[in-house]
Amino acid sequence: MKIGFAQINTTVGDLAGNSEKILSAYRKLSRLGAEIVLTPELALTGYPPQDLLFKSQFVPRNLEALNKIADEVDEAAALVVGFVSSQPGPAGRPFRNSAAIIEKGKPMRWVHKSLLPTYDVFDEARYFEPATENLPVEIAGRLYGITICEDIWTPEHLPRPLYSHDPLTQLAAHHPAAILNLSASPFQLGKPVIRQTMIAALSKKLGLPFAYCNAVGGNDQLVFDGNSLAVNPQGAIWQGASFLEQETVIDLNDLTSSLSEPRESMEDLHDALTLGLRDYLQKCGFGRCVLGLSGGIDSALTAALAVHAIGAENVTGVLMPSQYSSPHSIQDALELAENLGISTLTIPIQPAFEAMKAQMQDAFHGLPEDATEENFQARLRGMTLMALSNKFGSLLLTTGNKSELAVGYCTLYGDMCGGLAVISDVPKTMVYELCDWINSQEGPIIPPNTILKPPSAELRPDQKDQDTLPPYEILDGILKLSVEDNLSRREIKEQGFDADIVDWVVRKVDFNEYKREQAAPGLKVTGRAFGMGRRMPLAQKFSN
Amino acid sequence: MKIGFAQINTTVGDLAGNSEKILSAYRKLSRLGAEIVLTPELALTGYPPQDLLFKSQFVPRNLEALNKIADEVDEAAALVVGFVSSQPGPAGRPFRNSAAIIEKGKPMRWVHKSLLPTYDVFDEARYFEPATENLPVEIAGRLYGITICEDIWTPEHLPRPLYSHDPLTQLAAHHPAAILNLSASPFQLGKPVIRQTMIAALSKKLGLPFAYCNAVGGNDQLVFDGNSLAVNPQGAIWQGASFLEQETVIDLNDLTSSLSEPRESMEDLHDALTLGLRDYLQKCGFGRCVLGLSGGIDSALTAALAVHAIGAENVTGVLMPSQYSSPHSIQDALELAENLGISTLTIPIQPAFEAMKAQMQDAFHGLPEDATEENFQARLRGMTLMALSNKFGSLLLTTGNKSELAVGYCTLYGDMCGGLAVISDVPKTMVYELCDWINSQEGPIIPPNTILKPPSAELRPDQKDQDTLPPYEILDGILKLSVEDNLSRREIKEQGFDADIVDWVVRKVDFNEYKREQAAPGLKVTGRAFGMGRRMPLAQKFSN
Repeated sequence: MKIGFAQINTTVGDLAGNSEKILSAYRKLSRLGAEIVLTPELALTGYPPQDLLFKSQFVPRNLEALNKIADEVDEAAALVVGFVSSQPGPAGRPFRNSAAIIEKGKPMRWVHKSLLPTYDVFDEARYFEPATENLPVEIAGRLYGITICEDIWTPEHLPRPLYSHDPLTQLAAHHPAAILNLSASPFQLGKPVIRQTMIAALSKKLGLPFAYCNAVGGNDQLVFDGNSLAVNPQGAIWQGASFLEQETVIDLNDLTSSLSEPRESMEDLHDALTLGLRDYLQKCGFGRCVLGLSGGIDSALTAALAVHAIGAENVTGVLMPSQYSSPHSIQDALELAENLGISTLTIPIQPAFEAMKAQMQDAFHGLPEDATEENFQARLRGMTLMALSNKFGSLLLTTGNKSELAVGYCTLYGDMCGGLAVISDVPKTMVYELCDWINSQEGPIIPPNTILKPPSAELRPDQKDQDTLPPYEILDGILKLSVEDNLSRREIKEQGFDADIVDWVVRKVDFNEYKREQAAPGLKVTGRAFGMGRRMPLAQKFSN
Repeated sequence: MKIGFAQINTTVGDLAGNSEKILSAYRKLSRLGAEIVLTPELALTGYPPQDLLFKSQFVPRNLEALNKIADEVDEAAALVVGFVSSQPGPAGRPFRNSAAIIEKGKPMRWVHKSLLPTYDVFDEARYFEPATENLPVEIAGRLYGITICEDIWTPEHLPRPLYSHDPLTQLAAHHPAAILNLSASPFQLGKPVIRQTMIAALSKKLGLPFAYCNAVGGNDQLVFDGNSLAVNPQGAIWQGASFLEQETVIDLNDLTSSLSEPRESMEDLHDALTLGLRDYLQKCGFGRCVLGLSGGIDSALTAALAVHAIGAENVTGVLMPSQYSSPHSIQDALELAENLGISTLTIPIQPAFEAMKAQMQDAFHGLPEDATEENFQARLRGMTLMALSNKFGSLLLTTGNKSELAVGYCTLYGDMCGGLAVISDVPKTMVYELCDWINSQEGPIIPPNTILKPPSAELRPDQKDQDTLPPYEILDGILKLSVEDNLSRREIKEQGFDADIVDWVVRKVDFNEYKREQAAPGLKVTGRAFGMGRRMPLAQKFSN
């Protein structure tokens, strides 16, 4: 049972490019002796295709592409490939999330996904009809149970039971030789281990080997981590590359390896963010990026990730001092740039800031300066960065972290400007952890002073984050319970947090929904990110 | 069969306020002789509650509120009220979209929604378990079939069949005295007539009277239009108020009225936009709004709608001329403001524009001016307006129309700044139509010159929209087919549009997805708006 794993990085909607990748992997894996080549879920269309599915020619052209691929399949190996089929069913959805089984000389067969995730970032019930019956398929003389992603996520491994139907039990009753799974399972911290544990447990329980082929690559807010798996009931396990494309043949009958130590979570986080960033740039057609360097830790981390993603020669850091910038900020930013080997521009915003204040003088006559004038600075910096992005065609990266986005400690149309929010799902305490990890790997790239100094927005004299915000350890603890776990203020206070701080944080999170509504897309790395997986009304009055 | 229609305007998450509205309507309608008081769908929580549902205390507190309401129901009338019940089922979703039947002296009963819309703006499969069996309920000695919104939308009246289950057929088999429906059916142009036609047809077909109580009010992107209905099989029909709250008792046994002429679509559009705007402001806690006045038609329309929504005394128009502003623009804007009776501020942006250009001089050395410098002007205006919003606590209204948002003829963080995009679902040709309608009602409030002059962004000398865009009649025709109907370029060309123009428009729409990703929420008035009902990947390569 030699399975060829085509752990490939597809692009949503790139039917021609994805076909080429699938066929190239098929040819290579077939040469390497695979009997069956397995792709990720919806490999042909990329995942998630979202409302592209409704465009009149999307599904027809995916079917044409599938037929062209089928023409190329020869005797050497079968191909199991994810695509969208156009088979309405009793629930009336127009499409199915399907796998085609292509063997030379036999008519093409299909299986359809049974369990359609419709929670968090997933919207599959919007598009797809579920399969309600699951039968194994004969390929090369053996029976295989073919499943798609969620089909193998059983209630013990999801936070809550979501389905009454159990495709694995149905398939196992027919005694297949193995279970194959085509996945597009997005990364979040800790998920690779959860998948291993789940699939090993299922393999043992059912007495069947599993071949699990996951997608790899970034698609907007989602990053797929690869980490494909082959497991047998005796507990032998092979795990594919993390955050990299890979084409490997694994013999399910000769699986002897055991798992190596799990990777450090900061390594996973680093690789997820760099892959997500690289792919967003590449798939959107950008060769270069630009970002503001404040001397602070968020922009330092974002710059380091950008360099790791696309190389120092393609990253420009911009220093935009005002009268409130401290000398050490400029020094720290320049030191970072030098460490990273990126070019910098220094563009003082003070004259434009003064011009804006003069412009508003009449309208603001007699009123004291307040957050409005702080926002001028953030917005002039956003405008400056967007000007560079516009003039030179590079993508602006937003550098805000999850903690500040949560409580709205950021300026809409200011520091929130940008095409991608690289670390918007990384809480501030984890920003520090990741910087420490990067420095532990490559020496002190991120200047020690940037890590050690108290964080500050530097929008007024001697401003410090902690003048406004609770200490980040406390803030992040409360945010985890509130934003990710949906706990109420009372429930959070019962865990020992100060009542006034909890009230303040939850109020700020609720109040700032409108800012996040217009935020740049961000890379999801936790169980619950702001963005497509969290849908909150704006004009609303509930406080948990 | 005296049914009290509580066509009320609830606020999402305002459990106390909504309870108060429900009880107040109950008391009034019961005094007026109702035997049964009927509320809209999810009246207790507001619709749509979205991910508030997952907050630990949301559903429990809605159940507490329901019990408090039940305590207030007396012998005079029964109450049928929409709420969220916490009854997981075989599909494993945590909640149900339910109606409680409350009668003094009887235990509370519930029915659950069967057909859960999961398309366009609707995400009900994300939250709710469907009912799979539908039985009538006895209230005050009669059997009633109680349905919730989508439950009565049968395949003939939806653009495509979506469900295998038919609650109405099941209920009709038990010969109920009438069908009651609790709805939160959002407005789109032409929908009121579709509902009348559908419900009249169903009533006739099943031989049963219908009482249909719809929500009214704006909730973020959705505007509910009321227009509740009572219909009997003989074709007599009563229709409730449009875009207004209303509490009325209708005797289904004594329904004699026939329908008056359908309202003009421009009146519906006007009322939908003003209601959506008023409610967004009010429900977010804003008493005032501010907007830029360019002398053009989009800002003129938005200003007129704002005045109709919250009164001239609460609207400030801001003129922000640059060296490229024509004298007539300033004159037209001032004339509009005078006609509307709103206060204005004039804040020239030229000094700040010059400061920005000087600031970028080194970085842009030797490069010609281009869209970057045009964006400066739009962004300085955005910054100016946000400064007024920040300093004085008024909400900034964005004035862009659907046509320009579609092709990206707008500046991100510039004229796209704002908390609400009032006319972002109104195509430019319809902007003209609506302005003409407003002037036909109230005299020439919108200056004739604003309507007659060729539209221009005035970001460079002698610029006209039509230098860049196809004529709006053609653009809007293509956009309808592409964005709303999902047709391919070939299919659009087959309808007689110029091939090059079609290619240009479709390419622009695809390319500018990233701008819309960060756009302000807009009021949905067509079959398909940009926003929550259209979910497109950004890094993608398909062109239809």
